Amino acid sequence: MTTISQKQWIYRRQPTGQITTDHYQLVEQALDTTLADGEVLIESRYFSVDPYMRIGQSSKPTYDADPHPLNTVQQGAVVSQVLASNAPGFADGDWVQSYTGWQTHARVHASALKRIDPDLAPVTTALGVLGMPGRTAWFGLTESGKPHAGEVVVVSGAAGAVGSLVVQFAKRHGARVLGIAGGPAKCDWVRNTLGADWAIDYKAFNNADALGADIQRLTGGVDVYFDNVGGMVTDAIIPLINRRARIVICGQISQYSGGLETPELGPRLLHHMLYQRATIQGMLARDYLHRMDEMTRIVGPWVKAGEIVFEETVINGFEQLPSALNSLFTGDHRGKLLVKA
Amino acid sequence: MTTISQKQWIYRRQPTGQITTDHYQLVEQALDTTLADGEVLIESRYFSVDPYMRIGQSSKPTYDADPHPLNTVQQGAVVSQVLASNAPGFADGDWVQSYTGWQTHARVHASALKRIDPDLAPVTTALGVLGMPGRTAWFGLTESGKPHAGEVVVVSGAAGAVGSLVVQFAKRHGARVLGIAGGPAKCDWVRNTLGADWAIDYKAFNNADALGADIQRLTGGVDVYFDNVGGMVTDAIIPLINRRARIVICGQISQYSGGLETPELGPRLLHHMLYQRATIQGMLARDYLHRMDEMTRIVGPWVKAGEIVFEETVINGFEQLPSALNSLFTGDHRGKLLVKA
Repeated sequence: MTTISQKQWIYRRQPTGQITTDHYQLVEQALDTTLADGEVLIESRYFSVDPYMRIGQSSKPTYDADPHPLNTVQQGAVVSQVLASNAPGFADGDWVQSYTGWQTHARVHASALKRIDPDLAPVTTALGVLGMPGRTAWFGLTESGKPHAGEVVVVSGAAGAVGSLVVQFAKRHGARVLGIAGGPAKCDWVRNTLGADWAIDYKAFNNADALGADIQRLTGGVDVYFDNVGGMVTDAIIPLINRRARIVICGQISQYSGGLETPELGPRLLHHMLYQRATIQGMLARDYLHRMDEMTRIVGPWVKAGEIVFEETVINGFEQLPSALNSLFTGDHRGKLLVKA
Repeated sequence: MTTISQKQWIYRRQPTGQITTDHYQLVEQALDTTLADGEVLIESRYFSVDPYMRIGQSSKPTYDADPHPLNTVQQGAVVSQVLASNAPGFADGDWVQSYTGWQTHARVHASALKRIDPDLAPVTTALGVLGMPGRTAWFGLTESGKPHAGEVVVVSGAAGAVGSLVVQFAKRHGARVLGIAGGPAKCDWVRNTLGADWAIDYKAFNNADALGADIQRLTGGVDVYFDNVGGMVTDAIIPLINRRARIVICGQISQYSGGLETPELGPRLLHHMLYQRATIQGMLARDYLHRMDEMTRIVGPWVKAGEIVFEETVINGFEQLPSALNSLFTGDHRGKLLVKA
């Protein structure tokens, strides 16, 4: 039996607040590399860390009935290269995407792999603009947000992997776009690099009324609110919606470190939905997986032509994965956060 | 100049909590009955009192930019009879509907009147099942709720003018219906007379978790929530929504005595929208005014055939109008609340 040394991050304990290494354990073991018919041995190159991972750690039912199981490899999307193949159509060195999670190597059936064309765009885009975050931004905006030229689109988490794309996609629809992000550096990037009409640093405000007054001053009212964060930012925006506004609930990251278990209190604002005959719609990227071709047909050429900013922050080292996940909620990264093996 | 004695309830002061006679003043004056070309003199017979009247008293922008003006007659829908006419098509004794508000008589242009056919149904139905409450129930359910046979529809305020119709319309769509109302008498009526599958007295619960557990036990999950009340009842239901649930915000009456000015605090629950890819949609009856013919074509024959329960609670006496409005929020009436002149 030929083996290879395989490292894995095992999810051991449910976090109640921030992620620490207490919640994960790094293990190393021998992986038998003997391949059955149809199997492929892959080596992980880039790991995606995404806010949704924190939702799966809630003990209450979320988008799945059960939380991420304890004592298993942390699930997640990975870009890998083929080390050895016993499957037609896969050869050594091929780039592939899989959901094999936080492990350095995996032996998987070829049906669990999706090929990546390294000539179309950098392979990491399979975890970003041409992957789940891009799909979320594109379909969340087009199917739920439905922006029109001249409308005001507000994006929370505007410097994040999804938000930074929503800003750009909304601009391409002819909308006037306000990005909300944390800190002046992110706001500069949102306005000057992504092309938002306005950017607001929510950290400069200590209550929703003051934040809302500034949003109102800049925009005059909100037609589409693409929400990645929830909490105080959402409290500020709901009273500012225009007639028939569309609020897209894509994420609620301000609530992911405890608020999913025991809800925070916030102001009751549903009466504004009534006044403005507005809509709040929750969306998940998985519902559009079968429609990736529609998005790729449009966004792929923009990416190839260099017209879309898809900044990546790459953290080096498999060992950094738990702290990288945590830094999604605390860090200063822009765009897509990745860990390089 | 011939005159007639006209009584009016003048809206004098913005209420912050419940309505009292401090907020209204009864005045009596002479009304010149000389009719210009196209004018009609009407005598009010039945006044509608509706929860929306409290929204218009908020000092903040609601569905109208400005609140109901002070020192004017309280606006509202009225069923009247023609006393004298100088307009073609209107004759003494004709029944008409208008928005002339809380006054015993009015001289109005014929274009402000809508004829009522007393042979189709009792004239008071123009303020109920064949008027604004019926329109709200019908279009709120069909256009926003979109129930399917076999789905679970939950209706808050199920014994009210709108809710009692939603229960019946949802049953006709083949849905399984839970009505939520205040007190055992209303719940008996919702179940035994309106035909709901289940009824729950929310007053028997002192927190949303306990109420939610009972709703879950009965229904197994909620596909459509038609919300007239907001507050604790809504807190109980949002965590129970099924995949792609539709929440219709028709009213938020638990918030109308202060919560529109200074929002109450409640649990942040928008993350559930994400998990279930659910929709919250606000609706107002006025958006469907031009589509009354669609509703009348379907609901009119049901009413004529006696297949719809449209109970009315009639309070006698023009002097009772302010206390009648208040009793919408405190009283034990079922169905539509009216004041008879």
